[in-house]
Amino acid sequence: MKILIINGPNLNLLGTRETEIYGNSTFENYLNSLRSAFEQMEIQYFQSNIEGALIDKIQETPGVYDGIILNAAAYTHTSVGIADAVRAIDVPVIEVHISNTFSREDYRHKSFIAPVAKGVIIGFGLMSYELALMYFNKEK
Amino acid sequence: MKILIINGPNLNLLGTRETEIYGNSTFENYLNSLRSAFEQMEIQYFQSNIEGALIDKIQETPGVYDGIILNAAAYTHTSVGIADAVRAIDVPVIEVHISNTFSREDYRHKSFIAPVAKGVIIGFGLMSYELALMYFNKEK
Amino acid sequence: MKILIINGPNLNLLGTRETEIYGNSTFENYLNSLRSAFEQMEIQYFQSNIEGALIDKIQETPGVYDGIILNAAAYTHTSVGIADAVRAIDVPVIEVHISNTFSREDYRHKSFIAPVAKGVIIGFGLMSYELALMYFNKEK
Amino acid sequence: MKILIINGPNLNLLGTRETEIYGNSTFENYLNSLRSAFEQMEIQYFQSNIEGALIDKIQETPGVYDGIILNAAAYTHTSVGIADAVRAIDVPVIEVHISNTFSREDYRHKSFIAPVAKGVIIGFGLMSYELALMYFNKEK
Amino acid sequence: MKILIINGPNLNLLGTRETEIYGNSTFENYLNSLRSAFEQMEIQYFQSNIEGALIDKIQETPGVYDGIILNAAAYTHTSVGIADAVRAIDVPVIEVHISNTFSREDYRHKSFIAPVAKGVIIGFGLMSYELALMYFNKEK
Amino acid sequence: MKILIINGPNLNLLGTRETEIYGNSTFENYLNSLRSAFEQMEIQYFQSNIEGALIDKIQETPGVYDGIILNAAAYTHTSVGIADAVRAIDVPVIEVHISNTFSREDYRHKSFIAPVAKGVIIGFGLMSYELALMYFNKEK
Amino acid sequence: MKILIINGPNLNLLGTRETEIYGNSTFENYLNSLRSAFEQMEIQYFQSNIEGALIDKIQETPGVYDGIILNAAAYTHTSVGIADAVRAIDVPVIEVHISNTFSREDYRHKSFIAPVAKGVIIGFGLMSYELALMYFNKEK
Amino acid sequence: MKILIINGPNLNLLGTRETEIYGNSTFENYLNSLRSAFEQMEIQYFQSNIEGALIDKIQETPGVYDGIILNAAAYTHTSVGIADAVRAIDVPVIEVHISNTFSREDYRHKSFIAPVAKGVIIGFGLMSYELALMYFNKEK
Amino acid sequence: MKILIINGPNLNLLGTRETEIYGNSTFENYLNSLRSAFEQMEIQYFQSNIEGALIDKIQETPGVYDGIILNAAAYTHTSVGIADAVRAIDVPVIEVHISNTFSREDYRHKSFIAPVAKGVIIGFGLMSYELALMYFNKEK
Amino acid sequence: MKILIINGPNLNLLGTRETEIYGNSTFENYLNSLRSAFEQMEIQYFQSNIEGALIDKIQETPGVYDGIILNAAAYTHTSVGIADAVRAIDVPVIEVHISNTFSREDYRHKSFIAPVAKGVIIGFGLMSYELALMYFNKEK
Amino acid sequence: MKILIINGPNLNLLGTRETEIYGNSTFENYLNSLRSAFEQMEIQYFQSNIEGALIDKIQETPGVYDGIILNAAAYTHTSVGIADAVRAIDVPVIEVHISNTFSREDYRHKSFIAPVAKGVIIGFGLMSYELALMYFNKEK
Amino acid sequence: MKILIINGPNLNLLGTRETEIYGNSTFENYLNSLRSAFEQMEIQYFQSNIEGALIDKIQETPGVYDGIILNAAAYTHTSVGIADAVRAIDVPVIEVHISNTFSREDYRHKSFIAPVAKGVIIGFGLMSYELALMYFNKEK
Repeated sequence: MKILIINGPNLNLLGTRETEIYGNSTFENYLNSLRSAFEQMEIQYFQSNIEGALIDKIQETPGVYDGIILNAAAYTHTSVGIADAVRAIDVPVIEVHISNTFSREDYRHKSFIAPVAKGVIIGFGLMSYELALMYFNKEK
Repeated sequence: MKILIINGPNLNLLGTRETEIYGNSTFENYLNSLRSAFEQMEIQYFQSNIEGALIDKIQETPGVYDGIILNAAAYTHTSVGIADAVRAIDVPVIEVHISNTFSREDYRHKSFIAPVAKGVIIGFGLMSYELALMYFNKEK
Repeated sequence: MKILIINGPNLNLLGTRETEIYGNSTFENYLNSLRSAFEQMEIQYFQSNIEGALIDKIQETPGVYDGIILNAAAYTHTSVGIADAVRAIDVPVIEVHISNTFSREDYRHKSFIAPVAKGVIIGFGLMSYELALMYFNKEK
Repeated sequence: MKILIINGPNLNLLGTRETEIYGNSTFENYLNSLRSAFEQMEIQYFQSNIEGALIDKIQETPGVYDGIILNAAAYTHTSVGIADAVRAIDVPVIEVHISNTFSREDYRHKSFIAPVAKGVIIGFGLMSYELALMYFNKEK
Repeated sequence: MKILIINGPNLNLLGTRETEIYGNSTFENYLNSLRSAFEQMEIQYFQSNIEGALIDKIQETPGVYDGIILNAAAYTHTSVGIADAVRAIDVPVIEVHISNTFSREDYRHKSFIAPVAKGVIIGFGLMSYELALMYFNKEK
Repeated sequence: MKILIINGPNLNLLGTRETEIYGNSTFENYLNSLRSAFEQMEIQYFQSNIEGALIDKIQETPGVYDGIILNAAAYTHTSVGIADAVRAIDVPVIEVHISNTFSREDYRHKSFIAPVAKGVIIGFGLMSYELALMYFNKEK
Repeated sequence: MKILIINGPNLNLLGTRETEIYGNSTFENYLNSLRSAFEQMEIQYFQSNIEGALIDKIQETPGVYDGIILNAAAYTHTSVGIADAVRAIDVPVIEVHISNTFSREDYRHKSFIAPVAKGVIIGFGLMSYELALMYFNKEK
Repeated sequence: MKILIINGPNLNLLGTRETEIYGNSTFENYLNSLRSAFEQMEIQYFQSNIEGALIDKIQETPGVYDGIILNAAAYTHTSVGIADAVRAIDVPVIEVHISNTFSREDYRHKSFIAPVAKGVIIGFGLMSYELALMYFNKEK
Repeated sequence: MKILIINGPNLNLLGTRETEIYGNSTFENYLNSLRSAFEQMEIQYFQSNIEGALIDKIQETPGVYDGIILNAAAYTHTSVGIADAVRAIDVPVIEVHISNTFSREDYRHKSFIAPVAKGVIIGFGLMSYELALMYFNKEK
Repeated sequence: MKILIINGPNLNLLGTRETEIYGNSTFENYLNSLRSAFEQMEIQYFQSNIEGALIDKIQETPGVYDGIILNAAAYTHTSVGIADAVRAIDVPVIEVHISNTFSREDYRHKSFIAPVAKGVIIGFGLMSYELALMYFNKEK
Repeated sequence: MKILIINGPNLNLLGTRETEIYGNSTFENYLNSLRSAFEQMEIQYFQSNIEGALIDKIQETPGVYDGIILNAAAYTHTSVGIADAVRAIDVPVIEVHISNTFSREDYRHKSFIAPVAKGVIIGFGLMSYELALMYFNKEK
Repeated sequence: MKILIINGPNLNLLGTRETEIYGNSTFENYLNSLRSAFEQMEIQYFQSNIEGALIDKIQETPGVYDGIILNAAAYTHTSVGIADAVRAIDVPVIEVHISNTFSREDYRHKSFIAPVAKGVIIGFGLMSYELALMYFNKEK
């Protein structure tokens, strides 16, 4: 089983900034622990701050990946384009968020992606990704 | 570790009605499989169609349970009272939904509970509960 | 043919209070006249001020009743839960109101139940119930 | 007792188009069955696609008719003028709709006429007219 | 100087209905008193309940009339088409209302015509027309 | 007959600034011509840029004036206090505006005063005041 | 004089939880001090987390109590049913709140009950109840 | 192939008024040039200022025309009735506008007809009609 | 203990106008009875129709008064400036209203001052002031 | 004549995905047929999923192209930046859409680009591009 | 060069209250330092809590001052009258704010003055005034 | 002191297009004059039309620059991602705009960046940048 984790804008800063919100582990470190925990899965990672690059990557997944874990970060709330990309593919997408977006600004309560996602996992810190993997692992 | 699963209105019909949306397993059956899978945890269950009874139950959890998995169903979108109960206790609450509420009516996109929940898991069918248990299991 | 009339909050006060709006007949008296007029039907009655009790009752109707006449009163405008119960059953539900809700406060113009009801009858005083019975009688 | 049924725009197409929504009986056929069923009443019929012609007709009813059954169709949702005509006369008006307008587009949930109507009957197919006649018959 | 008074829907009922709001003089009687008071002007009158007929009439005025006094009644609040007709001609149009539309329903506070009218006179009873004539008389 | 004309903020600049909108006559000059034209009336004038001073003046009018012509200018759109003062007195108040407020910014379309005014005259330049005087003259 | 204090959802937790907002006195203790201070009055107390139970209790008050002090808590902002119960009885109801609801979430600024209450007292901590008693004491 | 061009309110003034917006060709002249350019098609024309007359005409097209080019002008933004007529027929309808409605008032950005039209062509001056004909010509 | 009562616009008319809403006691008379009832307190009074004068007075209170009872009347609903003055001082402010503002126009339901007030007392007639004094008396 | 067709996000998937909405022709194939049909024109093509890359390309067109056919897809509804680019150049831009955006989600009804486009063509499938070319061809 | 600094309501409290937001320098002290730093300019100062007094002062500036630095404080968000005064004069006005109004309450995000100001400077503490002076100094 | 000026979409066109709004100096020329005027500072410049590239650049500034002058142009109004980047770094950011965004379209009145910026400078033409530099120069 091959899973792609896609992180959107500013998530490359994980572990170095706003650690009180996002924790102080870099995503790369976290990725290693995920790969150890889910040895039976191949876990790839992609991050970009560019909306279009995220769309490009999502488009490349059919036939290559069995699932996408997508944290589109700020683009979650503004990008029709990423939602259209998710809509266009047949790879199941799980939307995840590290922080509880519902306890933050009003504009973070709206997700263009959620209606076309398989499911949504919000607010468990980095463990949001892990829960998504558990889902894919269980479903396979 | 002691976990309480609380289901809100109409979820007692699971497995018997609207099976195309909610699946055809009764929650009791599902509960048995959960208990088998999480033998190290004590999993209790409560369901009511009465908003106030749900509030009563939530109020009883401090000192008794280590976590709550709450699917408040219709009350999710209208109950300030349940949210206030969650706000009043120190037991962590995970909000779960079986169906993808974001792909349904607009009034199901709003949750009074989400801002005060530990996290939110939406759209994985009955596995939403299982993912919540995995979180509690991992965090303990 | 077996019909259940369900009345929501404060309708137990019919005939004793706000008689300028709701008339001065108690519902029990009215019920007797209905039963006389529709002798060929079995007409049962349930009233509660508790939202969840109304949901409970609606859930019990499949296989027992051929139709429901539902005046959810105040809950009409706020209860997703009652609407979900109506959505979950296959017994046809007719929403009725005694007063003309459209000539009262704005928040009474919205009904969560109407979209899932078979039909809606508003503003004919107690005769709203009678018209609903006429419909069931004609349709049988 | 003399009743006028007024049908608004596109209702002249009943029975020939969108039969999955409106049924396949023409209104003329239905009118015949109504007249047979309510022999003691004189039932007249008027249909126009022109908002002003509907207003003209409503204005002519005082002293001539004992009641109006009005399905203003699309004008229900946009015509202050028809509502003003209803407001100006002392003939009781019952608003009827064939389909359940509350389960269709949002702009069909608003009625300018309802607040000044005697009552509203929605969603019973052509039987909505019959229920209105039953009301007039009973009230006379 | 030649002035056309145009009255919209339901204003043909003036003096016969809702006299507590609109007074008990018919518009024809009032017109006679206006013609006596403004002998130096030619005052024509047109009334229709049909939006399009009002548009037709407005279109005919250029080169024929020096001014229009327009009480579009209910169409004031809903008709882009009448406003477009006023916009299309170079004859000055004064919008008048008999009652104080601002102390009535919210939907009567909006006028599509006002932004393209020369001026607006509201709430003086039938004298609203007279004030408009005084303006034309003074300006000529 | 004694009439008080009250002008609100920035109307002391009439005739000296924004002459393309408000004309180039000072209000004092205009007042002289009004007094000549309406010799049978006593016309007093008050202007202030201070909301509270306008309220003070309106409160002083009962028993002293037979009518008020009020151009509250900017305060028209924001002052509940001036509207309350008009509501509190029994002297009839006519709201006037020089420019067509409906063809300007959206926030100028709302008047707190209009619902409690006797009538409203908008957009006739300085002649708006004259029309108001004609009304009082005619009504006396 | 007989007064009923009714507390809504989660107010049974007073003094034990969220003490920084609601203080650390239980309501029972506070009730004792109230009874001592207002010996000439009979003060009864009812609390429920169930909306319908609150409606039931309000309905029982006519002929029994001279006044109600109602803190409907979360239901204040969502319950048309409780407001309808208050509307249906002739016992004067004073709405009270312990915390300043206007400095909390937007959805706490709206009260369905306030428009039909005798008066509203907000933000004085537990002394809000006392002020309400003082009013009843003074008015008797 | 038989095409009907339907023009709504005020479009009979084309070429004579507001020529800076709509150009200075009358629609009749333009129609001649269209007929020359599309000799293989039969092009009929209908214009009315009356909403109901436009509905009447649309209803007459099934079995007679292969396509409709509809510029409902002002009624585009307010008429549910015309949209319902389009919805009721199986003749393909292309909505056209001469000016760019999106660069004009906000209320011109909304079209009731567009969701049920085959396609929409906006802003090409009179050539909007020509492009619609090209489509029908190509599709036949 | 020194308390300042501040009344906003139009409250100088108390007892002389709109007596059906505000009662027929002048505030000066009422003030005398308050001073008699609360002899142990020094009660000063200030009224102005000018928003800025109210701000001036509020600014002067620190170090002079122990509490303010503020009925900002119309300015309650529109004045950010008065709210900012309350925010800037450390003297506790109780907002009072004579009538039940929640049963009047929608724009009276919003208070800029309430979020920064110590508490709010609404709808008890002149006794609203007395209840505020009782609070200050009790708290001292 | 030199025309640039610009396609926005996800339109590179044309012909391979969501073929029930967008058809099963790749845009490259379609482009060939367009070039054959419009031999007298030079037709260039650019596609990107990156908003900024679309802006870059639009900026390069002055002096190079005689017209742009722009399907900004998802960015149509969210990109002020692309609209600003269109605003900044003097090359005429025609906005096209393959599907009828008005019959899809509400957020697709809004276009930032339309107000600054020469014209808009919506809903004709791939033929939307062809109609735009016909316009440029005719206008040259 | 002669510049007038105008401060609105509550800014007379600068340096004495809410020092954590506004700093602890009085404006008079700050003014001295400004005059030293900009010796070549004549800097006058005016403060009032009264909206109308601010309007009066703005009206007096033409021909006297070369520029205005205006911090209307709370009136920024509510005063159409001050904006109209700015609109009426030809002296350039720079709007300044000490705190970052965009990170405070929503109602502070709206400025009636900004659209008619030369420019806006927000959030630099007292240095906002200095930057405005730098602009005038540079532009002279 | 090292300052980075970041310009967003379409600002690379400065001086060549829409010169009536933005002036006819290229930003490069202006940059030279800025560097001469602020010799003691090192001023770097970055421009991109790509939202993600702007985010990338903002992320690179900590430890390298002492301040950022950010004109995000169109992205100001739509980009949560750029605002998140500003929120994530500890380098002070000043938001600048060349034109007065408050006198343009409504959607330009909203800034996602302003709440997290140090300050905002709007409407001074290219001098907006210079004022920002003056601030950094003074603060160092």
